[in-house]
Amino acid sequence: MIKTIEWTDEGIRMLDQRLLPTEEKYLMLRSYEEVAQAIKKMVVRGAPAIGVSAAMGLALGASQSVGTSVADLEDDFSYMCQVMSQTRPTAVNLFWAIERMREKFQREKAAGHETETIKASLIEEARNIFTEDIQANRAIGHFGAELISDGDTVLTHCNAGALATAGDYGTALGVIRGARDAGKRVAVIADETRPFLQGLRLTAWELAQDNIPVTVITDNMAGHVMKSGKVNVVVVGADRIAANGDAANKIGTYMVAVLAKKHGIPFYVAAPITTLDLSLKTGEEIPIEERDGREITHIGANQLGPDGVNVHNPAFDVTPNDLITAIITDKGVARAPYVESLRILAETDTAGATG
Amino acid sequence: MIKTIEWTDEGIRMLDQRLLPTEEKYLMLRSYEEVAQAIKKMVVRGAPAIGVSAAMGLALGASQSVGTSVADLEDDFSYMCQVMSQTRPTAVNLFWAIERMREKFQREKAAGHETETIKASLIEEARNIFTEDIQANRAIGHFGAELISDGDTVLTHCNAGALATAGDYGTALGVIRGARDAGKRVAVIADETRPFLQGLRLTAWELAQDNIPVTVITDNMAGHVMKSGKVNVVVVGADRIAANGDAANKIGTYMVAVLAKKHGIPFYVAAPITTLDLSLKTGEEIPIEERDGREITHIGANQLGPDGVNVHNPAFDVTPNDLITAIITDKGVARAPYVESLRILAETDTAGATG
Repeated sequence: MIKTIEWTDEGIRMLDQRLLPTEEKYLMLRSYEEVAQAIKKMVVRGAPAIGVSAAMGLALGASQSVGTSVADLEDDFSYMCQVMSQTRPTAVNLFWAIERMREKFQREKAAGHETETIKASLIEEARNIFTEDIQANRAIGHFGAELISDGDTVLTHCNAGALATAGDYGTALGVIRGARDAGKRVAVIADETRPFLQGLRLTAWELAQDNIPVTVITDNMAGHVMKSGKVNVVVVGADRIAANGDAANKIGTYMVAVLAKKHGIPFYVAAPITTLDLSLKTGEEIPIEERDGREITHIGANQLGPDGVNVHNPAFDVTPNDLITAIITDKGVARAPYVESLRILAETDTAGATG
Repeated sequence: MIKTIEWTDEGIRMLDQRLLPTEEKYLMLRSYEEVAQAIKKMVVRGAPAIGVSAAMGLALGASQSVGTSVADLEDDFSYMCQVMSQTRPTAVNLFWAIERMREKFQREKAAGHETETIKASLIEEARNIFTEDIQANRAIGHFGAELISDGDTVLTHCNAGALATAGDYGTALGVIRGARDAGKRVAVIADETRPFLQGLRLTAWELAQDNIPVTVITDNMAGHVMKSGKVNVVVVGADRIAANGDAANKIGTYMVAVLAKKHGIPFYVAAPITTLDLSLKTGEEIPIEERDGREITHIGANQLGPDGVNVHNPAFDVTPNDLITAIITDKGVARAPYVESLRILAETDTAGATG
């Protein structure tokens, strides 16, 4: 099993995804600042993985606080939450995880617990978030498997796999693994996903380890392969889903959705219910991160573009709900009208499907 | 002025486009085999530039033939034509240029000319093809400028500029230069165009030299920038246009056309009339080159993908005529129904617009 992030006695052990697939190197992060930097620099990426990392980073930071009173610990912890929340703006799982850790702190404080007990509880909460993420992905795989037919070729964009989550199944790749584990033959076409090349570097690597057949294409080939009849279904992840079902995901997802619609191919979004942001009515309100242009103009030390060239590097785009056939969550499968189906799933405690 | 290809007394001087923009290096090609290799390895690329290069390569090869009789020269020349025709399959300009050189040879032979006269005539013909290409691009720029409004932002894919032609204006970039020279303010968004990165490496470099404002995006951002309202018009080149207006061009063009249609943005194809292949009824018949997967998995010596990963690397795709607003040629602007408008333009000797 791929171990994206792991809580250890020494610190947080994290697979450095910038170096894959040619180097499989694990970093040992020993402070919350190192975790925040790892999120910012994309050592770890993928909305669920960012959430788990942030929670573990906060637990680690709190455990290292030298504050002797609960008030001191709370000051330290609040500051850490603030630092963590400024790492990346789009994935809501980051803010969800921070909020959940904050609430845990408040409950512990309200219960009159001392600093050492609170620290232990925060570690436990982060580990729970980790375990729940693995379980959520298994549930996504279970629900999603129903939507895949034996012999299907699934196109996916970016990496929404084990590497984008706590590990194991992943979200979009969880659907593929779920179908495979249900006895269906599935092949994958992976968009390489510029500029960070998550498809070529991560999805291809991850699926090869699982012996799931995968073919990589450049992002601009998605239309051509769909037109050639090579794609039966599209499954992607999400970084934030608005109340109406509009979904932010890795840049290029919108383009894939438009192409899928044009070719009559079902387009599914797979994400844990924690990716849902009911505070936003539509996707228009989702903040889109703009990253350093050097990610486009350079590969490692290789300069590809001319000196001083202007580049635009939005890391995400928003796919409107009318292009989404269904949203596969750990609570069940939501279909249009999403404003209702998603609300119902969000209120569900036990797993079940709507629509 | 950018000199993509130049006939010199020493041989054919060619800008090595694989090294741009970080290195501006010119190769001196001293045999037809070197020219064929340069086309195959993409030292030179772009349909019109391939045509001009092939013609010059054949003229060079013929001039070096040691055959003492016209029959010997013809044997040599036929073999050279065969080698040249096997370099790249999609751009029809290659086959058009070879055919035109062949016809020149036959006319010279029929006129009873001797080997040295025939050799000189072939060189003259290749130089004519070069000059006519420059003129054709100026005409494309002239007709295309009418379709661009002051203040427009034009999205383009790949490089259909000076570097894709004999030099000077280019085809799609000829339209942009034509608009600029007609006093209109134009800005460009260039898709980086994986895997060879013609947009990032060549279009951005070429436009910067001309002080035309350009912003590079990755191919998967085209949908997002259109949805954001940043694009007024799309102009691309073509490698082969069927009788019905279906147009083969660099991989990803089809995707851009689908996105332009979705956003109500005019989508123009700019190409000399020599790119028209009336022998093909539809784009389905256009052969699509599949190139080495290493172009995707590696950048220079940098390995990006996992060992042994499957890749699919079609170099072109076909945009159906219903997604094309108009085809801008050196003979005028063709609009649907293309089967008629293109035929009329192909039969036109002097420049004029239809539709």
